[in-house]
Formats: sequence, structure tokens, C-alpha cells
Amino acid sequence: MVYEYEKVEDLNLKGYKVIQNKDGFCFGSDAVLLSRFAKLKKGARVLDMCTGTGIIPVLLWGMNELSGIDAVELVPSVADMAQRTMDLNGLSDKIHVHCDDIKNVKALFGAHAFDAVTCNPPYMNVGGGIVNPKDALALARHEIACNLDDVVRCARSVLKPCGKLFMVHRSDRMCDVITTFRKYNIEPKRLSVVYPSEGKSASLILIEGAFGGKPQLRVEGAVFMYDKDGNYLQDLRRGLL
Amino acid sequence: MVYEYEKVEDLNLKGYKVIQNKDGFCFGSDAVLLSRFAKLKKGARVLDMCTGTGIIPVLLWGMNELSGIDAVELVPSVADMAQRTMDLNGLSDKIHVHCDDIKNVKALFGAHAFDAVTCNPPYMNVGGGIVNPKDALALARHEIACNLDDVVRCARSVLKPCGKLFMVHRSDRMCDVITTFRKYNIEPKRLSVVYPSEGKSASLILIEGAFGGKPQLRVEGAVFMYDKDGNYLQDLRRGLL
Repeated sequence: MVYEYEKVEDLNLKGYKVIQNKDGFCFGSDAVLLSRFAKLKKGARVLDMCTGTGIIPVLLWGMNELSGIDAVELVPSVADMAQRTMDLNGLSDKIHVHCDDIKNVKALFGAHAFDAVTCNPPYMNVGGGIVNPKDALALARHEIACNLDDVVRCARSVLKPCGKLFMVHRSDRMCDVITTFRKYNIEPKRLSVVYPSEGKSASLILIEGAFGGKPQLRVEGAVFMYDKDGNYLQDLRRGLL
Repeated sequence: MVYEYEKVEDLNLKGYKVIQNKDGFCFGSDAVLLSRFAKLKKGARVLDMCTGTGIIPVLLWGMNELSGIDAVELVPSVADMAQRTMDLNGLSDKIHVHCDDIKNVKALFGAHAFDAVTCNPPYMNVGGGIVNPKDALALARHEIACNLDDVVRCARSVLKPCGKLFMVHRSDRMCDVITTFRKYNIEPKRLSVVYPSEGKSASLILIEGAFGGKPQLRVEGAVFMYDKDGNYLQDLRRGLL
């Protein structure tokens, strides 16, 4: 169930664990931050796109009372790892992992299938730098297989009216995120800026958009990754509530 | 020079003062924050739109080495107050107050006249609430005489290529600000979120856009109006550097 080049990380949340590749893409604080930021109603049906090792659906399941989660990952080896994580946690009947392209979500699930979509997408514009398009790590980080426009368009295609899109992204792309949300009639309603520490420029944003919502944004209290004494906010990576 | 219904406030900056209406619109921390946020090159020519009592040009003049500032205010009584503030400070040959509509800036100054434009515009959408269109206070606060689109369009019409637009606005309108900047090819390059205090939702944003700039936003360190002990950051209103 776990290969020797993999490791099992305890999430300190109801005993849930996640399988990760020792040398590959490991989940980071961005996945944890997004999972906490997403406000999900009881009984909601949720889609996680670009799910990677499945960390976000496991966290969402542990923190909310949902009817079910679908998780889509393009890279077969990574989707397989996510599936084994669900098996390991006894969550295979709650969280369904699909090895597929997010461009197929409407065909897979139908329009208006979800109350909410979450996504921790590839952050980097292709453009500069040489990337290997077959490298799973590169696919997770660079907009090779899908870009921001694809992510928002595909999310919208399966959201119910008033459904929510929750995303984490680099703060230097905040304008792209906001304009792309609006392009697809997903109005940003809640935004949180994540700073490495006080006085430092931001690194990430967390954003909630509502399909068909009215313009009115709440920029929530600043989130700092390190406190004044330089201590990492441990509960970001470990305990979650 | 100063009417009895007015007061003179000392800016604690090189002896400069500003005349204000005791019962009218007084400058607030937003004007001070914007003046500090605006990075202006030595010798720059600057336009301040919706200048009100002229606080922003006086602060900009005191904090930078500029070649000159033009300031535009629509309401005659307010523009007169701004002019008297310049006279009081001996700045009338440096800061030129124009009682005019911002929609006329291109006719007044010509295209490509300015290295930078600053603006602390009316914040509120008209829409809800009854406002008196002859009330100077209402004009300063509500988008009656000009809206966000007008402000950005008019600013762009007089900016040099790569010229900067600096604006302060309510954080709940951040998406409108960003999409309007981009609509007029003013790319947001630097943004600062202002929070009342730690843990509280944001109140204001400060934004710098570059005419014709490339997408890449720096979200600067969080700004707090009150520290952890509830003390107002006094230098916001008083000392400035």
C-alpha cells in the first residue's frame, strides 16, 4: 500500500494520514491554509481540482460534515497515491479520486453538481524557465497542463448557482486571480492575505468567490506564517483546529 | 485668510499647515497613508485629483523633491480652501490648485503631462442611501460627480508612458479597483492592505499602478492603524516621516 520511496504523514486530525513521495511534491502550508479558509455547509458536495496527493479532501472531510468529495488529479502516479491515501484512511466511499483532466469535469459530473470547488492550482506562469512537461512536480507547479483561466472556467462549469470557489494562489498573481474570477462571473467575496511574518511582503492569498455573487469583498484579518519570535505557526502543518 | 468656521491644523512636517472646515470633510489617515505610500522620483510632476482641502499635495511636497504639483477640486468653496492652504504655506508657486472637473484634466494639462497621479476618490457607490448632490461632504464621499471608472480613465489620459497612479480606496472595493486599473491598461504593481488592528478585517487598500506595466504585483507588509495595546499610530495623523 505504501512504496519504499514514499512516506506516511500523520495529519493530527482524527487519525488521518497522507501518503507522500519522499522526493516529490509534498503538501505545504498552502493546502492547510486553504482547507481552513474554505467555509463549507453541512451536507455540501465538494470537488477538489488538482488534488495532488489528496491532502485537501482529507482535511476538508475531517473538518466539515460533507455529503461527499470528488477529487481530480491528472498524473496517474499521483492520483494512485491519493487513492491509496483514501484507502489507508477508510475514506474511499466518501472521497472519490478521479485520474482525469480538469477540463473534463463537466462531462464527468454534470453542470451544477457541486456546492463548492476547492483548488490549489499550479502557481507559475509557463513563459520563463525550462520545465519538463512529463515531470509530475513541474505539472504541479507550472501552468503546463492547465492555467488559471482553465481552473476557474472548469470550476464554474460544475458549480451550482451561488456555489463557491475557494482557491489559494501566490499573492503576486492576485490581480490575475481576481480578473479571472470576474471573467467567469465568480465574484470574489472573501480574501485573506498570508504574510511570512509581520513587516514582510505577502506570499499567498486565499480567496472565496461566489458564482453570480454581487460585488462586495471582505478582506479578512492578516495571516502570518511566523510570529514575532520567529516561531512557525505549528498548527498550520500539524494540528488543524 | 482663515474663516471663523475653519481651523488650521499643523501637519508636523516642515511647519506646513492645512486649513480645514470645522464641520466639513477633514483629512484622515487615508490621505496620510497615501502620501507615504506614493513613491515619487526626484523632479517628478504630479497631479492630485479630488484634492479636497489640498492635504495630499502639501504632504507630497513636504516628503519629496518634486518639480511641481497640480491639484484639482470640483467644489469651489473647497478649492478655495485648498488655495488658501497653499498661500498660508507659501506654496502657491509650487502647488497649483484648479477648481475644475477631473473630466477636464486632459484639456487642462494635455496628454502625457504627469509622471504620477494621486487620488483619494469618493469611496461609496451611489446606489443605496439618499445623498444631497450639492453637499460638498456628500461629493467627497459618494460617487456622484465622478466614479472609480472616471478617476482611472482621467488619470490615464494625462499620464506619461510608465507613469504611476497611486490611489487609496476601501478594501471592500479592491476588486473594482483592480479590474478598473486593468481596463485602462494601468497594471497594479504594488498594493498595501491596511487593517484597523491585528486580527481585524481590512479597511483600506493602497495601490500603485503603472501605465503599460507588466503583470506582477507585490503585496507589501500589512499596515495596522492600531497596535496590539490599542494605541493609534500617532504618526499617521501627526509626524509623518
